[in-house]
Amino acid sequence: MYKINDNYLKLPGSYLFSTIGKKVAAYSAEHPEKEIIRLGIGDVTQPLAPAIIEALHKAVDEMGHAETFHGYAPDLGYEFLRKAIAEHDFQARGADIQADEIFVSDGAKCDAGNIQEIFSTDNKIAVCDPVYPVYVDTNVMAGRTGTYDPKTETWSDVIYMPCTAENGFAPELPKETPDLIYLCFPNNPTGSTITKAQLQEWVDYANQVGAVIIYDAAYEAYISEPDVPHTIYECEGARTCAIELRSFSKNAGFTGVRLGCTVIPKDLKCGEVSLHALWARRHGTKYNGAPYIVQRAGEAVYSPEGQAQLKAQVAYYMNNAKTILEGLKSAGYTVSGGVNAPYIWLKTPEGMDSWAFFDYLLENAGVVGTPGSGFGPSGEGYFRLTAFGSYENTVAALERIQKL
Amino acid sequence: MYKINDNYLKLPGSYLFSTIGKKVAAYSAEHPEKEIIRLGIGDVTQPLAPAIIEALHKAVDEMGHAETFHGYAPDLGYEFLRKAIAEHDFQARGADIQADEIFVSDGAKCDAGNIQEIFSTDNKIAVCDPVYPVYVDTNVMAGRTGTYDPKTETWSDVIYMPCTAENGFAPELPKETPDLIYLCFPNNPTGSTITKAQLQEWVDYANQVGAVIIYDAAYEAYISEPDVPHTIYECEGARTCAIELRSFSKNAGFTGVRLGCTVIPKDLKCGEVSLHALWARRHGTKYNGAPYIVQRAGEAVYSPEGQAQLKAQVAYYMNNAKTILEGLKSAGYTVSGGVNAPYIWLKTPEGMDSWAFFDYLLENAGVVGTPGSGFGPSGEGYFRLTAFGSYENTVAALERIQKL
Repeated sequence: MYKINDNYLKLPGSYLFSTIGKKVAAYSAEHPEKEIIRLGIGDVTQPLAPAIIEALHKAVDEMGHAETFHGYAPDLGYEFLRKAIAEHDFQARGADIQADEIFVSDGAKCDAGNIQEIFSTDNKIAVCDPVYPVYVDTNVMAGRTGTYDPKTETWSDVIYMPCTAENGFAPELPKETPDLIYLCFPNNPTGSTITKAQLQEWVDYANQVGAVIIYDAAYEAYISEPDVPHTIYECEGARTCAIELRSFSKNAGFTGVRLGCTVIPKDLKCGEVSLHALWARRHGTKYNGAPYIVQRAGEAVYSPEGQAQLKAQVAYYMNNAKTILEGLKSAGYTVSGGVNAPYIWLKTPEGMDSWAFFDYLLENAGVVGTPGSGFGPSGEGYFRLTAFGSYENTVAALERIQKL
Repeated sequence: MYKINDNYLKLPGSYLFSTIGKKVAAYSAEHPEKEIIRLGIGDVTQPLAPAIIEALHKAVDEMGHAETFHGYAPDLGYEFLRKAIAEHDFQARGADIQADEIFVSDGAKCDAGNIQEIFSTDNKIAVCDPVYPVYVDTNVMAGRTGTYDPKTETWSDVIYMPCTAENGFAPELPKETPDLIYLCFPNNPTGSTITKAQLQEWVDYANQVGAVIIYDAAYEAYISEPDVPHTIYECEGARTCAIELRSFSKNAGFTGVRLGCTVIPKDLKCGEVSLHALWARRHGTKYNGAPYIVQRAGEAVYSPEGQAQLKAQVAYYMNNAKTILEGLKSAGYTVSGGVNAPYIWLKTPEGMDSWAFFDYLLENAGVVGTPGSGFGPSGEGYFRLTAFGSYENTVAALERIQKL
């Protein structure tokens, strides 16, 4: 008789955003008259930029003629896209990353979930707390996390690095030495960042202890302050210790288009074994490339028109962030984030836990946010709002919250 | 110091089609004047059908306006597509599969590679020999296959089911009891099929011994004979023992568009645990849905126009198959397949192993095929040609082969 992977059974509850979706659907079914404003899941609402729409149409037309039809894409992505990424996202910032160190994928969530596969199940992971649930959950599924303690909501074999108001939401180097360190800056969910000097400390630490940093840069387009690194490869030594995950979801609104990439420098080696080669093998064996039309859309993100249009789109969302930040402050909330990130992190009112505040906000203001505790134990007592709504809805949501 | 997943290091050589690609590129570089005809990898060459192009353009336009923009897709796929699949591919054939038992994905290769994750690493797999390399390689990566014997080119913990001329390329029930059984009909690479009565035996066997059949139906659109099942759910009892993988790559030319689905009936349970729930959890945690525009393209596959256009496309490729089959026969080769599948499986000329014939054909005819030994030890002495080229190239390739 076959057996299942019982690591799956260790996972408590369902995936955070599935739970929220079900809760909101149930509430809507009971109160069909209530207009709900969703500032929960980090999904964009602005349409694709004209340059991207044009590129998509053009690529679709190519697929309709035998002479310009494209079948299987190259395993690791089309050269035109990998080159554009290498030049604009790395080389233009002085980061030494070449096109052949970039693996094009269908999004950072998949990459964030799959990257752990090339590492031993004996490795110990370190995560910020609170954190994007995918990092821990996918390691649970792989059997890398030990046992779950429902009281503390933590796993026995995971190193948690609390990010709280006390440390400015910046993790401190862990006491216990980890093998894999997940970092995400600008941070999801807290919206905080660290400086280049702070990130350099992490790179030095990883190189010193022999750890790999998995650096999630999905929100780098929202950085507005100088001295905040846009890629970990701005730091010296990152080529020997860091993998970077990047996404087109938030800088270009591709949440429903699906495109991302993983960067693995060829200098990143475990003894003689190149992690680049391992990931290439995974790509070649388990993946068949992102759609041609989507890779052409990705290329358009880097055209002068695309760049200008997307700069305006990011500015639109960051204006929402400002609206939320100022609206919450004037309503007396303690808030952070929202300056270099599309996420605003607020302290729930006295005595209310994160899920209680979720229900309170849904029932009294018809506003959906994300409970901080869903991101880890140190998220308890916090709540995340996103700037990805429309401006009108964002203003309306804040008016409702201020009236409470 | 972190450690890698050293199961990856057990994999001999690179992924089959990567190796072929490199060999052909090297030959082309040395002989730039030679025109090479590729009948190796199973990649389509006909453009997308007009109904699909139209659906893509329409969906792209929707993405350009805030009112019709689509962000994150539902975890398991859009209802419109899941419903179309359930109705046309299953219910219309009398197979009891509901829309909510279908998981939309970016292709059958990913699903074929990822599905093993929900099973214990203790499970023993059984595969046809020869077989699509992804089944075994992804189990190697997960540590489920024991050690590799380079002499026999087999893994110690894998049950091989030889498919040879002697048994009509149909596997026999294994002597040792497997936990997971990979079956693919119409078969890749042999192009052979089994009857509904034969498949029923497998379903009965799996239910009896407590095994799960992972049934790859990627080539079902090429079935021309009656009594060959288009889905395993035509067999009684399949709902309690079978997972089916389906693809849009070969029936609709989506190799560069990327769309597929996995079917897990809700009756498929390991004790109290629903495999449907496990796969849903994987999808929710590690995947973010196929692109909206691609799912709309998938829907167009089932429109009356789409169905008619794709029937003609399949007929085009099957005419190629006939050309190859008859051309090889008249040149004195022993061949099979090509009637219910786009693959022709030929016996290499006396004394030549599969890779020697690969080199011979490439160097003397400029034709690329796939060495049978790349699919498993029982593929040695065989060679695969595909019907997915253009008609002109197929005719030209056969003329060159006949001249040898």
